[in-house]
Amino acid sequence: MLSELDIRIDRRAAQPLYLQVADAIRGAIRAGRVGAGTKLPATRSLARDLGLHRNTVVEAYRQLEQQGWLSAGVGAGTFVAPQAGEPEPTSGTQAKPEAARREDEPSAAPFAWRDLLRDSRLLTDDPSRWLSTRSVPLPKHPILLSGAVPDRRLFPLEEFRASVRAVLDDADASLLEYAPPEGEEPLRSWVVRWMRRWGAQQVSAERVFILSGSQQGLDLLARLFLAPEDRVVTEAPTYTGAFMALRHAGAQILTVPMTAAGLDLDALEALVARQPIKFLYTMPCFQNPTGITQSAAVRARLLDIASRQRIAIVEDHYDSDLFYGEVPPRPLIADDRGGQVIYLGTFSKMLFPGLRIGWIVVPPDLADVVCQFRRATDLASATLPQSAMEHFCRAGHLERHLQRVRRIHARRLRAMLAALERHFPADARWTRPDGGMTLWVELPEPIDTLELFHEAARRGVVFSPGAAFYPNGGGRRAMRLTFNRESEGRIRRGIEILGELIAERLCARRMDRGAAEASTPLL
Amino acid sequence: MLSELDIRIDRRAAQPLYLQVADAIRGAIRAGRVGAGTKLPATRSLARDLGLHRNTVVEAYRQLEQQGWLSAGVGAGTFVAPQAGEPEPTSGTQAKPEAARREDEPSAAPFAWRDLLRDSRLLTDDPSRWLSTRSVPLPKHPILLSGAVPDRRLFPLEEFRASVRAVLDDADASLLEYAPPEGEEPLRSWVVRWMRRWGAQQVSAERVFILSGSQQGLDLLARLFLAPEDRVVTEAPTYTGAFMALRHAGAQILTVPMTAAGLDLDALEALVARQPIKFLYTMPCFQNPTGITQSAAVRARLLDIASRQRIAIVEDHYDSDLFYGEVPPRPLIADDRGGQVIYLGTFSKMLFPGLRIGWIVVPPDLADVVCQFRRATDLASATLPQSAMEHFCRAGHLERHLQRVRRIHARRLRAMLAALERHFPADARWTRPDGGMTLWVELPEPIDTLELFHEAARRGVVFSPGAAFYPNGGGRRAMRLTFNRESEGRIRRGIEILGELIAERLCARRMDRGAAEASTPLL
Repeated sequence: MLSELDIRIDRRAAQPLYLQVADAIRGAIRAGRVGAGTKLPATRSLARDLGLHRNTVVEAYRQLEQQGWLSAGVGAGTFVAPQAGEPEPTSGTQAKPEAARREDEPSAAPFAWRDLLRDSRLLTDDPSRWLSTRSVPLPKHPILLSGAVPDRRLFPLEEFRASVRAVLDDADASLLEYAPPEGEEPLRSWVVRWMRRWGAQQVSAERVFILSGSQQGLDLLARLFLAPEDRVVTEAPTYTGAFMALRHAGAQILTVPMTAAGLDLDALEALVARQPIKFLYTMPCFQNPTGITQSAAVRARLLDIASRQRIAIVEDHYDSDLFYGEVPPRPLIADDRGGQVIYLGTFSKMLFPGLRIGWIVVPPDLADVVCQFRRATDLASATLPQSAMEHFCRAGHLERHLQRVRRIHARRLRAMLAALERHFPADARWTRPDGGMTLWVELPEPIDTLELFHEAARRGVVFSPGAAFYPNGGGRRAMRLTFNRESEGRIRRGIEILGELIAERLCARRMDRGAAEASTPLL
Repeated sequence: MLSELDIRIDRRAAQPLYLQVADAIRGAIRAGRVGAGTKLPATRSLARDLGLHRNTVVEAYRQLEQQGWLSAGVGAGTFVAPQAGEPEPTSGTQAKPEAARREDEPSAAPFAWRDLLRDSRLLTDDPSRWLSTRSVPLPKHPILLSGAVPDRRLFPLEEFRASVRAVLDDADASLLEYAPPEGEEPLRSWVVRWMRRWGAQQVSAERVFILSGSQQGLDLLARLFLAPEDRVVTEAPTYTGAFMALRHAGAQILTVPMTAAGLDLDALEALVARQPIKFLYTMPCFQNPTGITQSAAVRARLLDIASRQRIAIVEDHYDSDLFYGEVPPRPLIADDRGGQVIYLGTFSKMLFPGLRIGWIVVPPDLADVVCQFRRATDLASATLPQSAMEHFCRAGHLERHLQRVRRIHARRLRAMLAALERHFPADARWTRPDGGMTLWVELPEPIDTLELFHEAARRGVVFSPGAAFYPNGGGRRAMRLTFNRESEGRIRRGIEILGELIAERLCARRMDRGAAEASTPLL
């Protein structure tokens, strides 16, 4: 029987194993090697002979039954079906009415698309699930201390409407044609002027490419530079979307811890001394999630190490203009003498994330590669949002909006820090950012913030569990708190609720431990 | 000397070889194994000892010179520079003024970003360059018989303005917030109703995902399903952007030829019998570039083969509603009983490509994977274009626009066919599409359309050379002609000029051949 079936399994083939088995059996029936009515081997014995899991053979038989090639009697085994051996339609003729025959039978097995996926990690490995409240029953109007998202109530909507109307009034049909892959020229020039305010004098429009958000820049860089198993370095904790993009490229992510003054440079030096890396991904200003800004000393030493060790740097300046001190911190690219920094910027934190506009600054000799990437991925960013954004910024609305937002954010940040002082346990630690949207809390030992997350959500407060920000595990005692999305009153109330929850848990655990210790001698 | 330098080359490392050499030498200087003033081996001998190309060592030395580690006298060899051996700054201190020292020297070598690219194919392998007229000096107002692009003079701009204004008037700030990765719900529901007109009854909104153009769908599918060396089948010729996306994923592209009735199914059957494939990419209606529509027989047999052989199909219905007959051809998905068809649609050919809106219909069990893909690549499509497009379509403007465009396109197509009849050589062959924007011409033997392309561009006529549409080579005698972008008069004029050029070339070649034949006996 086995020799008639002639089943050859190729474990490296893209085709799932059960389909290989099914195809081989179908081939044997078609070729007439096994005739109608022939009894097939039991699934268990065929699986053993082929070195396969029994379920694989069961699935192959099931599919062939549903397609009418095999028929199964209860307990009696599986047989080649009566008409299964009839000749194939000769090529060039009309299709024979096999589809019609199938319709009379029970519905066909659903096509196994998921078996065709190139990497099962695509299905399971998504730390952003820890940031989702979909699985949690949230009360109405929860207090949102999660997300790195602007407060939509502060959006200058009327000014934006005016800009879109002005663009529409001026536009001819070319507004709706394919845009250039590098982005609309006026917006690129505006970005250059904007970046010069930070001292980035060597950035010119030829190096600026408009993207559909800076996330697309991360994806672009991952795909241009990272072959599977290539090594790349991020801070830990870091932005979840960044390491998701790096991981989609199959890269191996190495991490350096954050210190109070920025990433740990000794750890970075030790890391790059041991192995080549493709690049370092860093957020020098108001790092997401910690809110930490690199000190001047760290910044200078980082650039020096990069220059000496020839390390490529990807700088994510996502929160660029949300600073609450006197002057904005300088981005790394402003002092990048060796051309080693690729820069990512975005409007999504300062303004309207729904418009999906970010940008990347690359060295001139990568310009053609970036254009080719856009042509192969999505051709270009949408025209109308680019033109509207350029008009909005050129009219001075962005500057005015930022002045207002900085004042409001700073107040909310102060409210959160004061509430933390009041309601969080004495042995908790948190950062004190001077920009951005988020701060970082580390809680004392027995607290697990993934557990706390669900409980807090039920009580109407949403934060981001620390585990979502670690590419290689960790952060179970940490949480990211967003301070810009709620009023000061609701921030205070949110922190109070979290503080109560944490105190309850600490108390319960300490009592447990006390009980356990007390009971130990009795055992 | 060699043992002091201790250079270890790892050819599989991501780091370029010259950087490995440079790093090793720098390490030896730092460690004090080679002191200031030491003469290094000649590049030729070091390259031989290490089994490297000499240029690699030259480049390593050059970089170390520019960084101040080495110094070279003319003809005298290369030496370790005087201060090169001074100790490194100890970690944790301020950066030492090494950057300052470098500034006094000749400018640093530009950082070798291109050496970090994961795949050199990203730099060279771009057939879309054959579609670019950037390198050609075009006269003013060229006749455009190239591109698969709507004629912007037909855009219903006033109606679009009205839709955007209506959306803005109605909107609150949520219009500018992050959109859901699956797309705006009203637009997804509109797509479902639109597709039902073609008989695609089983498509529901949960299966529809809005994309930034259907090119993003191709990229999505390539990245979800294709590991390097996976096999995938396309028609030949086919859409350039499709095989570019497939190739970026590292896939091996197999092709089946086009026949007058659609793709060659015998060739497809033979192909899938020999090897597993991940999916077939096909354009059943008005195929780009040929304009061919699958006959009912081919369509039925293709679905039958796919069902029997369990072949996954990606259907690109990019020109869906640009048909010039009585009824539109049915898409494959309308008869997809086994759930084997993933469908790509777009607004970019019917309406405004600059808005970057397309969509994909996937089986329900891939929905989470598609959302995760969007989160890792660019989060979502822009909100405002989606809302404006939905308003525009719901108001009936799309239907009215299509009625007008179909009439005009059909006239332009007839003008082109008549002009081809009149001006092209008798032994040329071309397709007679009943939809879409393009037709396909095959010219007699000695014509090379890549050469013709440049000459025609100089004479003010732009077409697309056939070679741009073959993933694995071919098409040098073919051209794609676009019939929808110019007036009938300019189409006639364009074809006349092309006809003259072809006749000149045929004549010149035949005379050469005549001369060669005449001269042969004399040799």
